[in-house]
Amino acid sequence: MGLWTWLLFIYLILICFVDDVLSGRTSSFRRSEWPSTDIPLDSEAFVVPGGYNTPQQVHITQGDYDGKAVIISWVTESETGTSEVLYGTEEHKYEHIAQGTTTNYTFYNYKSGFIHHCLVDGLKYNTKYHYKIGTGASAREFWFQTPPEIDPDVPYVFGVIGDLGQTFNSLSTLEHYMETGGQTVLFVGDLSYADRYEYNDGVRWDSWGRLVEKSAAYQPWIWTAGNHEIEYRPDLGEISTFKPYLHRYVTPYVSSKSSSPLWYAVRRASAHIIVLSSYSPFVKYTPQWFWLREELKRVNREKTPWLIVLMHVPLYNSNEAHYMEGEAMRDVFESWFVHYKVDIVFAGHVHAYERSYRVSNMNYNITSGSRHPVPDKSAPVYIIVGDGGNQEGLAVRFSDLQPDYSAFREASYGHSTLELKNRTHAFYHWNRNNDGKHVLTDHIVFRNQYWASNTRRRRLKKHRKFPN
Amino acid sequence: MGLWTWLLFIYLILICFVDDVLSGRTSSFRRSEWPSTDIPLDSEAFVVPGGYNTPQQVHITQGDYDGKAVIISWVTESETGTSEVLYGTEEHKYEHIAQGTTTNYTFYNYKSGFIHHCLVDGLKYNTKYHYKIGTGASAREFWFQTPPEIDPDVPYVFGVIGDLGQTFNSLSTLEHYMETGGQTVLFVGDLSYADRYEYNDGVRWDSWGRLVEKSAAYQPWIWTAGNHEIEYRPDLGEISTFKPYLHRYVTPYVSSKSSSPLWYAVRRASAHIIVLSSYSPFVKYTPQWFWLREELKRVNREKTPWLIVLMHVPLYNSNEAHYMEGEAMRDVFESWFVHYKVDIVFAGHVHAYERSYRVSNMNYNITSGSRHPVPDKSAPVYIIVGDGGNQEGLAVRFSDLQPDYSAFREASYGHSTLELKNRTHAFYHWNRNNDGKHVLTDHIVFRNQYWASNTRRRRLKKHRKFPN
Ligand SMILES: [Fe+2]
Ligand SMILES: [Fe+2]
Repeated sequence: MGLWTWLLFIYLILICFVDDVLSGRTSSFRRSEWPSTDIPLDSEAFVVPGGYNTPQQVHITQGDYDGKAVIISWVTESETGTSEVLYGTEEHKYEHIAQGTTTNYTFYNYKSGFIHHCLVDGLKYNTKYHYKIGTGASAREFWFQTPPEIDPDVPYVFGVIGDLGQTFNSLSTLEHYMETGGQTVLFVGDLSYADRYEYNDGVRWDSWGRLVEKSAAYQPWIWTAGNHEIEYRPDLGEISTFKPYLHRYVTPYVSSKSSSPLWYAVRRASAHIIVLSSYSPFVKYTPQWFWLREELKRVNREKTPWLIVLMHVPLYNSNEAHYMEGEAMRDVFESWFVHYKVDIVFAGHVHAYERSYRVSNMNYNITSGSRHPVPDKSAPVYIIVGDGGNQEGLAVRFSDLQPDYSAFREASYGHSTLELKNRTHAFYHWNRNNDGKHVLTDHIVFRNQYWASNTRRRRLKKHRKFPN
Repeated sequence: MGLWTWLLFIYLILICFVDDVLSGRTSSFRRSEWPSTDIPLDSEAFVVPGGYNTPQQVHITQGDYDGKAVIISWVTESETGTSEVLYGTEEHKYEHIAQGTTTNYTFYNYKSGFIHHCLVDGLKYNTKYHYKIGTGASAREFWFQTPPEIDPDVPYVFGVIGDLGQTFNSLSTLEHYMETGGQTVLFVGDLSYADRYEYNDGVRWDSWGRLVEKSAAYQPWIWTAGNHEIEYRPDLGEISTFKPYLHRYVTPYVSSKSSSPLWYAVRRASAHIIVLSSYSPFVKYTPQWFWLREELKRVNREKTPWLIVLMHVPLYNSNEAHYMEGEAMRDVFESWFVHYKVDIVFAGHVHAYERSYRVSNMNYNITSGSRHPVPDKSAPVYIIVGDGGNQEGLAVRFSDLQPDYSAFREASYGHSTLELKNRTHAFYHWNRNNDGKHVLTDHIVFRNQYWASNTRRRRLKKHRKFPN
């Protein structure tokens, strides 16, 4: 590391120390708010690429467990067209070809275009690949960079975005993220907010796909489902949940032995990333519960020191919006997160930013025992990044008294960046959208919970202390 | 009412009063236990009716919202055969015919027989109907009694059975129930325990169907799904949950505007019965949550004074088995149960009997507030009847100190009976299987929470007290 990096490092550690000693902070920053209205459909942000049946809404996600595959997805509007991807390591020279599949769906009176998904696998690590989709004059070319091989000390940069939507604030968040150099997006749910339109207008799924293409076509976005993906509309005869989302955004769930695209895991560089579904069954004996129990056993901190969990509904939140909505899942999974020393749990849902101290609240017992969250060195830090900028606006009402578990909170739009440096340290910062500029606001240095923590490993407690 | 009924009534009220004043009781009764082993397949309890392709495993359930329809189900083993039901009000004279449907499924290496479901609707209330299924020499005849018209003061008797299985204890419970004169069974989940066999052997679903036929062919069983119905076996390639259960046991969920057979409601006589699914999504924004919110608004205590909820996992339980497994659902639904003054919540899952006082525990707050359940006149009584008698045996470890919320508990096999007398009173008792005899053990008089309670109606609190 160069001198400046070292100085920044020391500075961040000092800040971190000071933060730990002081009690939580509620930022007084108030931005001069832009209206939280969706960008008009005819805006350039949503521009439809020219030509006949040209691929649009291009996005990629990791295609396997370890990062040697991607799934490339796009939509064609006029006819099925081809689901082939041409790809290779040299620009305009495509040595390889992969065959995808096509699907489509209807939602009440909306009929989707032809949605293509193509798995491209057997890739080399740490390599730039170029790819081409569509045919003839309508073909389009993109590229992506594969991650380094799984290694405990390999650096990697994740962006974290939630509740994005498609307002001018959403666009600002997206552009700021693209300036901050993230290599992969961890997306914590609530994508397009199409369900806010009459009949859950699928046209707003299409526009959102075009909005994020400038990032999502070039680097993987790791998807988590939120409540705006449920789209349960029995009044319209639409009773199968997550219908548009599941058709449009696929995940490599089979690679992590999951039986549902809504919960799964990927390993990437030095991170093991677990994606949970707040709105699927998760109590004891359910598939998600069984799966998570097994997936946590598969985590190997010697190979992937950084254990990160994504979900939509936060387990710790002191905003009036969605206050304590995560209690049911906290009740079921918190003790596992502490036992396995999860580093960070990222969530969205609350349209604000909040970071917790390392706390746990497992002593609650309906018969006896205490009830408050207590400091717990083995607990994850819980971070809410539901501040992408959707049309519902900000959640500005935090509790007047900041709870002990809350370290920093601010009701602004923004996104986070997590820079994994090596097996022991990571730099984390939250970027506020400061009316056009992005401003590094909350920042801490994470010490890895497995490699750099001074707590000894704890045995898994019985889930409950049974009162005898 | 006759003199003796009045005396019994007064006696029960006195007992009830004494019970309310005293603290909870843990029964010291210990039965000389029969082994909790399943009845051998060649036992008479599972006898296959003679003849070719003869209908077996006959069972009925309510077929609509208000009790003017039944769904008749059965299995034929050799060929599809007919799904017709002949029925009428006179024996052997079948004026009417209804056409059903046939389905079947495989589960790993098990292939089900042909499962028939036939809706018989447009029935008259309070009428005995005879019905005939199968053809020629293989035809079989049964009967059922429709309930009285929905009326706040009409008497009706429900049996409550849970976690039945197919042991000698299960048979004992079933026979005792049939002696105690119930008119409809409220079944709180865990039916056959076929999933305890290698490959979740479907043969044990078939034997269970034959076991309960002697009751279930003649009166409706209202079904609730338990964990033994989930049958999630990704190792066998079986990843769709509830597969055998959903094929075999249907419910009239569409009549109550539900989008899933796993949660629904029926009205019968003076009762509004709500069936919930412990293992389906239930947190805010999920289909079950939306449905329950609407269904509770549809409850009309002027017509159906008795509001009863069935679920598998109990919300209050002081047994070591499954201790606090219901916390996630309690967190989400308890405040609704209190607001709508649910009379009784029946659950199973714990293989013992336990009845709570009227308590609630909604003041828990992750930031502040109290944490213990407190007496609450608007709260339901929570009753666990997971003591049907399955092969897993009894849950004998109650907490040494009986919690304040627990009124009576005993680790014996048995079932309950709820006799709705009129809009204000109901007699309730729990029958212990006393090694062959059934013994009335726990009994209370319920005063209706809407008509006979002296609490004023409370407004729906905000789900959480937000700390300001
Ligand atoms: Fe959300
Ligand atoms: Fe159970």
